[in-house]
Amino acid sequence: MARPSDLPLDATLADVGEFGLISRLVELFGTDERVLIGPGDDAAVVRVKRGHVVVSTDVMVEGRHFRRDWASAEDVGHRAAAQNLSDINAMGGSATHLTIGLAAPADLPASWALGFARGFAAECESVGATVIGGDLTRAAEVVVAVTVLGECTQAPLVRSGARPGDVLALTGRQGWAAGGLAVLGRGFRSPRALVEAYRRPQPPYGAGREAAEAGATSLIDISDGLLAEAGHLATASGVAIDVRSGAFDLPEPLLAVGAALGADPLQFVLGGGDDHALLGTFPDAASLPEGWLVIGEVREGSGVTVDGGEHDGPTGWTHF
Amino acid sequence: MARPSDLPLDATLADVGEFGLISRLVELFGTDERVLIGPGDDAAVVRVKRGHVVVSTDVMVEGRHFRRDWASAEDVGHRAAAQNLSDINAMGGSATHLTIGLAAPADLPASWALGFARGFAAECESVGATVIGGDLTRAAEVVVAVTVLGECTQAPLVRSGARPGDVLALTGRQGWAAGGLAVLGRGFRSPRALVEAYRRPQPPYGAGREAAEAGATSLIDISDGLLAEAGHLATASGVAIDVRSGAFDLPEPLLAVGAALGADPLQFVLGGGDDHALLGTFPDAASLPEGWLVIGEVREGSGVTVDGGEHDGPTGWTHF
Repeated sequence: MARPSDLPLDATLADVGEFGLISRLVELFGTDERVLIGPGDDAAVVRVKRGHVVVSTDVMVEGRHFRRDWASAEDVGHRAAAQNLSDINAMGGSATHLTIGLAAPADLPASWALGFARGFAAECESVGATVIGGDLTRAAEVVVAVTVLGECTQAPLVRSGARPGDVLALTGRQGWAAGGLAVLGRGFRSPRALVEAYRRPQPPYGAGREAAEAGATSLIDISDGLLAEAGHLATASGVAIDVRSGAFDLPEPLLAVGAALGADPLQFVLGGGDDHALLGTFPDAASLPEGWLVIGEVREGSGVTVDGGEHDGPTGWTHF
Repeated sequence: MARPSDLPLDATLADVGEFGLISRLVELFGTDERVLIGPGDDAAVVRVKRGHVVVSTDVMVEGRHFRRDWASAEDVGHRAAAQNLSDINAMGGSATHLTIGLAAPADLPASWALGFARGFAAECESVGATVIGGDLTRAAEVVVAVTVLGECTQAPLVRSGARPGDVLALTGRQGWAAGGLAVLGRGFRSPRALVEAYRRPQPPYGAGREAAEAGATSLIDISDGLLAEAGHLATASGVAIDVRSGAFDLPEPLLAVGAALGADPLQFVLGGGDDHALLGTFPDAASLPEGWLVIGEVREGSGVTVDGGEHDGPTGWTHF
């Protein structure tokens, strides 16, 4: 079988063919001792130690969730994996295995698909997770559907456990990716730290499990926007949440972008997603693990407020 | 919350919105005692009894794998589920849980998405499997990515176990869906039995487990074409496979379509997929469970032959 490096640089998926590409992709994915049957059969089989499996599926569409001119194939692979690994983090769990469904135009460069897979595999490897299978087919645009499996060492952390009196807390970078997206949208490439944060988010892997061990009452990952996700916690828990705008340390690159674009940098923090920070509630500030910041509180009632009042600005992302 | 029946008939996904549609979809999916956390959180959690999980992902694209004018939304839902449930059948296992990633244009009728989900849920229910989550996003065309989880009661049946001297055997309808597709492609709607077989395949659910219990040496489901799948068995097992063309009972509707379209009806059987019949190898004909038909044999060597010679005709489907 030809090695990936044998591919002509301009080879498309149509040139390489479904099975030719799959065999090259599979070479990029490692394995682990829990994989009983890996890619290449009708299904994969993995060992499950803890009597349960945590499962999440996410779909990314070119032009909507990523642009090939704004990030490298490797970057998109890292992002696609991070988005899914983060869903397991948000349950207080650890990701173990993933599958990738890739639909793509026949003229997609095979090198893009291979770069995507390299980035995806590298991100998974960083948390000890393995790609075990997938599907490849033709479509008008690139669509990536990922399913991630994982496990929890204690009860999964759901959205519905927040109680009045809890503190609201955040861990991980927040607003950076939204700042990077705003920069790219204006045709700029700097501040580089924000653009890189958009291209390759750095979710606080492991912080979900630490939150569960510390007695967090609810947890969610911020993919659609901080206030939007706070709203999901509030709705699921039947409580009100108030966010304190003064709680955030606005990092220098966000201040710079705010100044350059004439935008309030706080809006990136309150409305931005894509960093996959974690938002959770805890019985009190004393129970927070290291790296968490108190940013508000849980009250009786419903809905989300900022500094006790309605928020005037974007709260997040809507898909339709 | 509004009931599905409250939707205006012409409401689109954009009218209903992401969360409005998701809440309606979730109502259509049942639950079971193995579901610890169902749809609506960052991930679902299911109980796993047997220490392993069987996993497969498939992607279907409108215009390529289905056409909205050739089948109802319910039909497409049945087909999408059947295709995935069949992958677990082909490992000798039973499907337990599924996720759906749906990417669709904003102007897709919400009623189509709901009809799809109804058909999907009904097909899953027929084998005791449950939909536990998914994702919904916007795209230029309808793309459905399904991941199915399952379990085996004995060692999973892989493609690589066929040995020279084994018999090759088939169970389930084969060629019917291909006949139906050919009919639809010419603008006809009959024979109705074939068109219905294309719209709603009837995979031989449970036959995979029976094959495993009977000592089958390898197993695969026929989604791309009988000879193509026989080729996958031969390659994975390092053997040659010979198919006997006289072994098949050609059903009356296939004979009728062959006559009407001037085609050899055997080609639908040898080259057709989409029925999700099972193709397997067994140590001898005496070990076949009920409902299996011997259609050939496994020999030393490599490749697939028909009646000892090269096949002159289509062997299956290629994706690029």
